[in-house]
Amino acid sequence: MSVPAPLHPLDPLSPAEIAACVSAVKAKVKENEHGEHRLWFKSIQLIEPPKKLLAPWLDQWHAAGRGHRNILPRLPRNAVVLMGVKRPKSTTWYEIFVSLDGKAKVTETISAPTHLHVPPDMAEMMAAEEALLKHPEFLRAVEKMQLPPHARVVADGWIYGADSEERTNRHTPFMVYLNLTNGEHEDSCHYSAPLPIVPVMSSDDFSLVRIDYCPIFGTGEKTILDLDGPFPWHLYVTNEYDAALVEASGVALRTDVKPYRVIQPEGASFSLEGRVINWQKWSFHIGFNYREGPVLSDIRYDGRKVFYRVSVSDMTVPYGDPRAPYHRKQAFDLGDIGAGLCANSLQLGCDCLGEIHYLDFDHFGVDGQAQAIKGAVCIHEQDEGLGWKHTNFRTNRPSVVRNRVLVIQTIITVANYEYIFAWKFDQAAGVHLETRATGILSTAAILPGETSPYGNVVSPGVLATNHQHLFSVRIDPSIDGHNNTVVQEDSVTMPYDKANPPENNRWGVGYVVEKTPVTRSGGYDAAPEKNRVFKITNPSKINPISGKPVAYKLVPTPSQLMIAHPDSIQYARAEFGEHHIYVTKYRDGELYAGGKWTNQSTGNAEGMRAYIGRGDAVENEDIVVWHTFGLTHNPRVEDFPVMPCETHTFSLKPNDFFSKNPAIDVPPSTQTFNQSNLYKAGCAGCKDGGCGCQAKGIACKCKAGECNRTGKL
Amino acid sequence: MSVPAPLHPLDPLSPAEIAACVSAVKAKVKENEHGEHRLWFKSIQLIEPPKKLLAPWLDQWHAAGRGHRNILPRLPRNAVVLMGVKRPKSTTWYEIFVSLDGKAKVTETISAPTHLHVPPDMAEMMAAEEALLKHPEFLRAVEKMQLPPHARVVADGWIYGADSEERTNRHTPFMVYLNLTNGEHEDSCHYSAPLPIVPVMSSDDFSLVRIDYCPIFGTGEKTILDLDGPFPWHLYVTNEYDAALVEASGVALRTDVKPYRVIQPEGASFSLEGRVINWQKWSFHIGFNYREGPVLSDIRYDGRKVFYRVSVSDMTVPYGDPRAPYHRKQAFDLGDIGAGLCANSLQLGCDCLGEIHYLDFDHFGVDGQAQAIKGAVCIHEQDEGLGWKHTNFRTNRPSVVRNRVLVIQTIITVANYEYIFAWKFDQAAGVHLETRATGILSTAAILPGETSPYGNVVSPGVLATNHQHLFSVRIDPSIDGHNNTVVQEDSVTMPYDKANPPENNRWGVGYVVEKTPVTRSGGYDAAPEKNRVFKITNPSKINPISGKPVAYKLVPTPSQLMIAHPDSIQYARAEFGEHHIYVTKYRDGELYAGGKWTNQSTGNAEGMRAYIGRGDAVENEDIVVWHTFGLTHNPRVEDFPVMPCETHTFSLKPNDFFSKNPAIDVPPSTQTFNQSNLYKAGCAGCKDGGCGCQAKGIACKCKAGECNRTGKL
Repeated sequence: MSVPAPLHPLDPLSPAEIAACVSAVKAKVKENEHGEHRLWFKSIQLIEPPKKLLAPWLDQWHAAGRGHRNILPRLPRNAVVLMGVKRPKSTTWYEIFVSLDGKAKVTETISAPTHLHVPPDMAEMMAAEEALLKHPEFLRAVEKMQLPPHARVVADGWIYGADSEERTNRHTPFMVYLNLTNGEHEDSCHYSAPLPIVPVMSSDDFSLVRIDYCPIFGTGEKTILDLDGPFPWHLYVTNEYDAALVEASGVALRTDVKPYRVIQPEGASFSLEGRVINWQKWSFHIGFNYREGPVLSDIRYDGRKVFYRVSVSDMTVPYGDPRAPYHRKQAFDLGDIGAGLCANSLQLGCDCLGEIHYLDFDHFGVDGQAQAIKGAVCIHEQDEGLGWKHTNFRTNRPSVVRNRVLVIQTIITVANYEYIFAWKFDQAAGVHLETRATGILSTAAILPGETSPYGNVVSPGVLATNHQHLFSVRIDPSIDGHNNTVVQEDSVTMPYDKANPPENNRWGVGYVVEKTPVTRSGGYDAAPEKNRVFKITNPSKINPISGKPVAYKLVPTPSQLMIAHPDSIQYARAEFGEHHIYVTKYRDGELYAGGKWTNQSTGNAEGMRAYIGRGDAVENEDIVVWHTFGLTHNPRVEDFPVMPCETHTFSLKPNDFFSKNPAIDVPPSTQTFNQSNLYKAGCAGCKDGGCGCQAKGIACKCKAGECNRTGKL
Repeated sequence: MSVPAPLHPLDPLSPAEIAACVSAVKAKVKENEHGEHRLWFKSIQLIEPPKKLLAPWLDQWHAAGRGHRNILPRLPRNAVVLMGVKRPKSTTWYEIFVSLDGKAKVTETISAPTHLHVPPDMAEMMAAEEALLKHPEFLRAVEKMQLPPHARVVADGWIYGADSEERTNRHTPFMVYLNLTNGEHEDSCHYSAPLPIVPVMSSDDFSLVRIDYCPIFGTGEKTILDLDGPFPWHLYVTNEYDAALVEASGVALRTDVKPYRVIQPEGASFSLEGRVINWQKWSFHIGFNYREGPVLSDIRYDGRKVFYRVSVSDMTVPYGDPRAPYHRKQAFDLGDIGAGLCANSLQLGCDCLGEIHYLDFDHFGVDGQAQAIKGAVCIHEQDEGLGWKHTNFRTNRPSVVRNRVLVIQTIITVANYEYIFAWKFDQAAGVHLETRATGILSTAAILPGETSPYGNVVSPGVLATNHQHLFSVRIDPSIDGHNNTVVQEDSVTMPYDKANPPENNRWGVGYVVEKTPVTRSGGYDAAPEKNRVFKITNPSKINPISGKPVAYKLVPTPSQLMIAHPDSIQYARAEFGEHHIYVTKYRDGELYAGGKWTNQSTGNAEGMRAYIGRGDAVENEDIVVWHTFGLTHNPRVEDFPVMPCETHTFSLKPNDFFSKNPAIDVPPSTQTFNQSNLYKAGCAGCKDGGCGCQAKGIACKCKAGECNRTGKL
């Protein structure tokens, strides 16, 4: 049976397509009924059509217009399946290419590279956890700690990382904690009771590799094995985030947060044709895959091409505690796990306000059976204050428009931690990526009275280690066409000599903009002290007003880059952690700044270093721009037991792309439209009668004698 | 007659107090009935009580509690009047101190310094404009340009600046433009038709000083006097921002922006006692003065002192075109003009959404008569997305709270330009200042076909000059008390040698936080490459969890600082433009980073350089922290005819101030509370019946044959 065609060639694989892939693979590689080997489906991913086919197709799509899509040719539809054959003692991994044109069929099978590792997955982690929790060696190690009867051991699978160039087997380390409610409350925050052991399991056969013992002083590597007595678990206190448990702990929830509702009486201002959204002159396609999460493609404004594809490419989270086994902690949350797979099911009225549209993510279990994340993406409008304003001081007439934005949001949970990714589109043709880091810190045990140079004590016995989050965002521009040039622009002081001032700068106030086109692929850095901006220009299209090439500008976030020593494996693994901006020549499939296989990589993952290593010419070429930014997170006590969002936004703004402010046609902000209300004061603790509460129709709550001095509010 | 006492010693001067000041001054300095001299009231300002009186009073105020304020002592109430005696040929300026305790009386009169200049004011500018527009020399200069009959000349008073250390008289230069509608539409954007002359008027007697001719090529200093023919004004096109004029120009306003309303069915969550606001454990006093605009004082969280006083202290806007007369363009919008005086009358449903409370600003005309800006400050709550979230991957239970903020907003118009200042308080005890730059660029004439290294052509014949905006924010901390220490913290790589790894960093991943306390007053710089933060600590109060001093942290914005050459007058005048952070020892009245008198200052305005020049000890002392940040603005075509907001936020966040996340008690975000709605698609251009529009209850707008391929949305 033929697989139904997608509406759009970038639409994620449908359940039918996923099922077809699984069937096609199973037809080739039979499952062993007797358990000698088992097929383990790790990922099934759309292979986006090559740009040379897709780019013209997208132009045709736009030319055809709504209601006439049926005249468009069907592009080849291909997927790649990452599948393992798990045998009791070993697993072999394959990449199996499937064509979905007509009846699904396998077109090629290759072995996954043996010098790199396939990612772990949740099923492997859960299986390893189950095996760990009943493993006699682990139980003996736990028993030695003489833990209390009301505590239950919880083990969170983590990423193994790497500490040398040697290839190790595929491992899952476990961060071990206590649930201090004896498991009665599954949402009790076990991160406030970390145990100082890290058992390491095989990700393939779920056997115990070894148990690592962790340092428990602020410095040095002494472990519980060096203590005279058992581990003093008594130091832990419950430190809860779950509302019911917070209340149960005696902390009253606030009662003075009054409702705040976003009402859109005429509905949202966007419309959808399948997964292509139209909003305020913007149009683009919203894709989604297991690794990058949301992918926005064919982004156009008022019909003009702006970006071919944007996505978060990868992220690395290196930790700064140099002591074993913590030195290995370095997650690549996208490459190692997958932002799509970790997406939250977003819920109405919780994660955003107003009129919300949700997109589901269809995927599958390791057995190939269909699964779905309901509401993996939410789409809504947001008011972001004023868009622009001018008051004519002669007429006192204000011209004011608000800044409505369209938000495409995904929230991911990676074990203890959360990331919120929101792409925002505004009415002045700007595109913004807002990232928020929240969730729970990765914690380690520390003895009472100790402090550490490697982190902060955030709860008794709990060390939250210093770490970084570095994101890599992939921006494939199409500024009025696919051939673009990146130009670095610095604002620099003009030469001046006070004693002998030059003719063109007699008072020393002049500055000019120094423009340096990026000619070869490579890494480039932020320089806020020079107001450095990177303009993505189309040198063939000149703005009729300014006479300069049309452009979008990127002001790079000047975050601290990798702190790890440049000679370390941690540094080598973070292929995108050396510079803020990378420019590469476009190649189909070159999507992963950290390399395609980041899990336990040792610094040769064929990611950004390979991409830029070609030294391609990138002037007036089809290029990709990558931005690395993030935060060095030295935890505060306030970041525990759950962390208030650390928010960061970077923007792509038109710069001489249009011939005037593109938001000039946004209707003025008026009370008729917005219907706001004047604040009505409640009783302010004043004596009834004296304060005028009664006259104002306010219920007066005062006792006699409580009137304030002037008797008025 | 006694002047009524204020409710709170920081309340702005009331109309009665202003009137009492004017009367007291007039009783001393009689107005001349025959016009030989005239009293000119420039500013009447509250002198805030000295900290040694006010700080204990504020503690008493909190201790007394609502309804018991009448037990508090009355603090001395003093004001200072800046008044000129204008005579036909000269003006003398006085600072007159008035006591408002009991009957108002003048306590001291001093002459304004003669080596510095008093600010201009709107009345002077309007008087000078009136005189200019009928001045024969100016009319002759205009006539020579052979302007069209449909054009009317408009002249905007500006700031004169300075270009040498020599003292000049007090001048008002005029930026001259054409209103291309012959003045028929007063809101027509004359900034799109700049004329290349800058007449300079005396700010004192409104006489014409001279007419400066401006460069009209992209480089060099040739003016219209160097042209063979008249100035080619024909090159100008109307380029409007006023909605009615935009529409009249043939641009249709968008019709697809659907209403978006913020409804607070139970009202706002804040309460006011006079000008003291209480919201979500925060309390503070909202002052306002002609110069700084809003001033927030006695900021406490859950009863604990956090900041004694925060305000925007000054701002400088230096321009980078080195050619006369533009080289002199450098505004100090607060020091030269006054943010309070320029405040917009904010209007319901335009400038913010939801339940809004407004505060008026009572002031006076130059004649001393009462005036008021209605709604100079607006106060409202805003939803800013998620506050924190964690999903337990085992139970799939999300814990999610939203981030409600309280916003104190003022918008100022300084001739062509607008600034929006919004102080934001969040539920996790963070304080943020959001600045938005918008309004209209200061423009200059440029001949057709010319481009300039000093700016960008944003409309035919219109050069928008490159410039900077540097804000200085004054933060007077009281982190659990008035004696605080600023500690600079850098995240730095630990030493590592791969060949011979040190014992404490065997894999090269370690990093530590280098702490440098600021011991002497001075300037300090941002260093994002080291993740530099400045912690304002109270070394006497130790956080019981982390063992570190309680603190609030400031992550400085690493904006480009003054680009002008360090030997230039422009650079000298920007006393706060050399560093991102300044730390000074507190002194009463030391409020102005640019100096008290910035107008036409030449670099010796007794501002920041004098404050830090004392070299005070600032460790564990009563200190003030100042943050300089801003933007280098090299205009885009998209910034014209009105500029989309350039937004910037910096934050003050608790860092080991609390013993856990202070937002842990915010109730969960639920649909019951938020009442959001599922998006309802409209007809997506699909054939009635085939798409299921009817079944979904959607009005189908398609013609026959317009159904999309799959027949579903």
